[in-house]
Parts: sequence; C-alpha cells; structure tokens
Amino acid sequence: MSGWLRIVGLGPGAEALVTPEVTAVLAEATDVVGYIPYVARVAERPGLTLHASDNRVEIDRSRHALEMAADGHRVVVVSSGDPGVFAMASAVFEAVESGPRAWRDLDIQVLPGITAMLAAAARAGAPLGHDFCCINLSDNLKPWPLIERRLRLAAQADFAMAFYNPRSKSRPEGFEKTLQILRKECEPERLILFARAVSRPDEALRVAHLAEATPEMADMQTVVLVGSSRTRIIERDGAPIVYTPRFTPE
Amino acid sequence: MSGWLRIVGLGPGAEALVTPEVTAVLAEATDVVGYIPYVARVAERPGLTLHASDNRVEIDRSRHALEMAADGHRVVVVSSGDPGVFAMASAVFEAVESGPRAWRDLDIQVLPGITAMLAAAARAGAPLGHDFCCINLSDNLKPWPLIERRLRLAAQADFAMAFYNPRSKSRPEGFEKTLQILRKECEPERLILFARAVSRPDEALRVAHLAEATPEMADMQTVVLVGSSRTRIIERDGAPIVYTPRFTPE
Repeated sequence: MSGWLRIVGLGPGAEALVTPEVTAVLAEATDVVGYIPYVARVAERPGLTLHASDNRVEIDRSRHALEMAADGHRVVVVSSGDPGVFAMASAVFEAVESGPRAWRDLDIQVLPGITAMLAAAARAGAPLGHDFCCINLSDNLKPWPLIERRLRLAAQADFAMAFYNPRSKSRPEGFEKTLQILRKECEPERLILFARAVSRPDEALRVAHLAEATPEMADMQTVVLVGSSRTRIIERDGAPIVYTPRFTPE
Repeated sequence: MSGWLRIVGLGPGAEALVTPEVTAVLAEATDVVGYIPYVARVAERPGLTLHASDNRVEIDRSRHALEMAADGHRVVVVSSGDPGVFAMASAVFEAVESGPRAWRDLDIQVLPGITAMLAAAARAGAPLGHDFCCINLSDNLKPWPLIERRLRLAAQADFAMAFYNPRSKSRPEGFEKTLQILRKECEPERLILFARAVSRPDEALRVAHLAEATPEMADMQTVVLVGSSRTRIIERDGAPIVYTPRFTPE
C-alpha cells in the first residue's frame, strides 16, 4: 500500500465551512494527526486511528505523521482554519527538510481551508476588502521587536490588518503593547473588530474605535481585524456592517 | 416572501473547493448575479435566473442585486475566491451605504470562500506560513504611488507578499515596476511564485528567484507570491516545496 500525507484545514469551526476536498481525504485516511481540539472535530470510524497531541509539539507531531506516511499509512494532519496560515503546514515542511531524504519524495499535499480572518471579515462585512496584512502576535517563535516593526510599517502602509494569537495567559502584555503602537500610528477613530469563535456556537463579534479598545477584548480564541484609514461602518438595526471601500483617492 | 442577499465565494475553480454553505444557498436562490465567468460556474435549474454581467460594472450589479432582494428575491452574488478579498463584498456595501435607507435592513450575509492566494500557497507548500500581506496591483481604483509605497514598506517589514491582478493588457507596465521595486528592496535570491489558474485544468505553477523573474511570467489569471527573506525551497523529484518556517531568530 502506498502511503500519503495530506495537511488540511478544517475551517473555523462550522461543518458547512469544511471543503468537500477535505471531507473526501478524511474519508480515505487511516490516521488523523493534530492538536487535541482539532482532532476532536473528526468523527471516529472503524479503520481510522486518531492521534491527538498537545499544543507546542508541532515538530514531533509532524515527524510522527511523516513516519506513518512513509510506512504506508494514509495520514491527514488537521489544522483549524487554513493549514498554511500560522498552522501545521510550515511545521511539517520544517520536519521534511530536516528529516530523512526519503521524506521529500512522499506524496504530500496541502489542502486549503477557510482561515479565521476571512471568516471573521465575512461576518462583519468586508473589512479586508482592500490591501491588508496578517500578523501572528505571538512572540513564541519570533522576537517581539520584529512584531513591533511590522506593526509600525503596516500602519504606515495603511494596510488593514488581521492579528492571530493576539493574547494568551503566558503573554498577557503583548496585545496591550500592540494597541499602544497602533494608537501612536493611527487616528483614535480607527475601527477595530474582535471576532471570537466565528461560526461556532459561542461566536461573538465586537466593533470598537481604537481609542476605546482594551486588551481584555481579545483572547486566544479571538482574531482581531484593524481597518485601514478608509474602513467605514454602516449603522443599522442589529450588528453594523464594517467594510473597506475599493476606491482610494489620490 | 422575504428576500435575502448572500455574497459568496466560489473558491479558485474546483468544485471540491466550494464550501457546503455556499452550495446550500445556491440551491435556495432565485437569482444569481455576477461577472460572466463566475456565473457560468453555477448550474442552470428551473426557478433560478442567472444574471451575468461584464467586468467593471460592480456597482450597477450590486444595486441590481439589492433591488431584487428588496423585492423579495433570494439573491446570491458570486465572486471567485473569497468575496471579501478584492471581490464583490466591498462593492455591495458601497451600494448599500449610498442607496436607500431600507437596503441597510435587508438580510445580507457574506459567505467566505477559498481565496486564490491560499489555494496557490497550498499548492506550493506553505510560502505564507508566516506574517504576510496581500496587495492588489491594479491601479484602476487607487493611485499607483500608494501601491509603490505599500510594496516598499511591505518589503522593509519582511512580509511574505501575495499580489492579485498583477498584470492586464491595459496595464502592462505595473508588474514590471513592481519587480523593479522588489529588486531594490530584496536580495536577488528572493523566491517568487507564479500560480496560474490554481485548481483548474490549466493550472500552472512556476518558482523563480527574483533576479530571474520577468513581467511575462504573470497575467490576470496569475496570483504572485513573494517569499520573505526566510522563505526556503526544498528540492525533490517533481515540483519543489516552497515554505516559510515558523521560527525567526533574534
């Protein structure tokens, strides 16, 4: 039997946001590998082994998946959202590059998913409807000064911004520093959107002006979207619409 | 009958990349509105009227969709990729904001899709596996100096980059200027990926170093991905893997 490895995105949570392509490979898999809450989204069935592991063991998990594929298993590595956006795809390729030469010639494919920032943007309207950037605010894997530098340059470029991993218990201060940098670079009325658990039962969206935003509005389940200087709000009954127009004047 | 409007993303082309959520609303729709090639992806059936229109009439198309929804139709506005990324969502909300007050209280939802840059990244490996930005290179709706400024700042921030609409017959020179700016800001070995028609039968991927990249490598069907300074290539039999590691040293 010829093994393979698929690195797939399960989308932000709702089953209706999982692509048919991903559903099809899960149906063919012998093994599913991933972080505990994402593996929990895959239904058990005969012939399928679920390998759930804790956070922060991405390289060990990747090597395990590659070993099983090399042994002839049909292995699916699951991420939330899109596997190529702050998720498992880079970790697997780090393991491939540093591993046995034979791993390079395995049948490996990445299958995209609906990433959190685009699910959040859709819920709010179209805040990323113009040029934007996407920054992981965790400094576990990069120095904080690089994050600061990117935030400043992104604000100067007038990008809309999406932030992943804005805040965790072990790094409570990072998002506060982020807000301080944004307040230096942007006007107080800049729109900022806190989108928590989009498409899941506990979904919550909150729109604020930068001047009123506080660190407590975000946690690790939140994606934060910051508008560009052109981003607008349409008030109406119910949740407002936040969108960035397509046109920028001279 | 109570009308509604759904602004949906059909993904990059393959049926297996259309979310079940989008498939479900298309099955309930009375009217589908969009650019000719995207409407052509929706199957005809009794009770469904297809309204295909030409490019560059996004506001007229949006108003038409809103009028029909206000009249009780179940209207789906289709975009390729994700509707919130350089597609129809912003155009519809521009029409809402400038239109009759009653349009604000219509039942409007945006349903996300797999956007071209993430489908392209998945095919190549994980080139957007770290902080990145996304820029529309068309200067139809914004001044060219703003694009130049964003390119320079994005390179200085060491973002990976995704470019939509890199080149058209009416703007043959923009992508050449883009390459010139990147050559000033980045090293000659910087990896650049040209991904054309991803997930469609005529899909073509090409990886080059910045020094060898030429404007002719892109057209309007191409998404261009530029790595960060950390983006790596894994050579192997067949197409190489391009990925950006998660870790950035001090």
